[in-house]
Amino acid sequence: MVFDLPAWCADIDVETARTDPTDQIRLAVELAERNVATGSGGPFGAAIFEIESGRLVSCGVNMVVPSKSPIAHAEIVAITRACEATETFDLGAPGVPAMALATSTEPCAMCFGAVPWSGVRRLITSARDAEAREIGFDEGPKMADWKQALERRGIEVITDVERQLGADVLREYAARGGLLYNGRGGH
Amino acid sequence: MVFDLPAWCADIDVETARTDPTDQIRLAVELAERNVATGSGGPFGAAIFEIESGRLVSCGVNMVVPSKSPIAHAEIVAITRACEATETFDLGAPGVPAMALATSTEPCAMCFGAVPWSGVRRLITSARDAEAREIGFDEGPKMADWKQALERRGIEVITDVERQLGADVLREYAARGGLLYNGRGGH
Repeated sequence: MVFDLPAWCADIDVETARTDPTDQIRLAVELAERNVATGSGGPFGAAIFEIESGRLVSCGVNMVVPSKSPIAHAEIVAITRACEATETFDLGAPGVPAMALATSTEPCAMCFGAVPWSGVRRLITSARDAEAREIGFDEGPKMADWKQALERRGIEVITDVERQLGADVLREYAARGGLLYNGRGGH
Repeated sequence: MVFDLPAWCADIDVETARTDPTDQIRLAVELAERNVATGSGGPFGAAIFEIESGRLVSCGVNMVVPSKSPIAHAEIVAITRACEATETFDLGAPGVPAMALATSTEPCAMCFGAVPWSGVRRLITSARDAEAREIGFDEGPKMADWKQALERRGIEVITDVERQLGADVLREYAARGGLLYNGRGGH
């Protein structure tokens, strides 16, 4: 099972190594921006990198509406594609290079829960959860100390990287009247 | 994007209406049991029903190991298949019959977060989260009041239905030495 990315993702530079979390976030935000600009989904992008080499392992964009799947969030797409590329259900398995997930907005409740299962060892985020809620997304019930909960599992969390860039994509989506695909029709 | 079910799922009785939550849970537990007995995945099963008619909309079983995907939990499989069958990203959209998700064990942190996005209006569970943790699964960081958090979103939660049946499947998986597919090799 794999999510196919929008056609424009073929333009993404997959050759350049990105070891700096800021460069990793810039790619995640670029994916979100282009997803909004092309109308291929919600205002969220994510990417997975090998921490040491900086190699790009996978990209993800939000595709809930076009794929008619409520789980097609950018992080889930990036995780499933990274697992397929690596042929493992655990990106943190022995023998697999340690990986980081960069995402253009802090994860929603579902994607937060997916992070420990995925095996990534670092999570890097741009816009805040509150900024997604401000434009009308129900990011779900999340514990106040979600960062610490991941850190207790040995997953490093780096937040607010280029926060303004990530937040700008959310606001652009709202300004364009982008669909809020909350469950139960938003009620 | 869709998860293909194991071949034995073709035997499941999809014609009988099941309006009683106990009958709905019995099907979810049967799916879990047969998944363990046939070695097709982890000890978890789930199914989605129309609440009023009792019509079975979709089935799911855990397929993390065979599909090499950490998100292939029974609930995610059932949700994605129900959305595909219903051609919607929101099973609670106007015009769609209200739906219940029955699952053989209380949802992990990821599946808990997926429930509000899915649009289901009722969650029914059998074994407890603690019983999955007892056999070694890391069900992830979950808020203590997760039931209330769903209820605050208008999602009815019915727990402990045939709890012993669901818990027995977990213990059978452990007794058979079933793989614990926790992230980061369990560390």
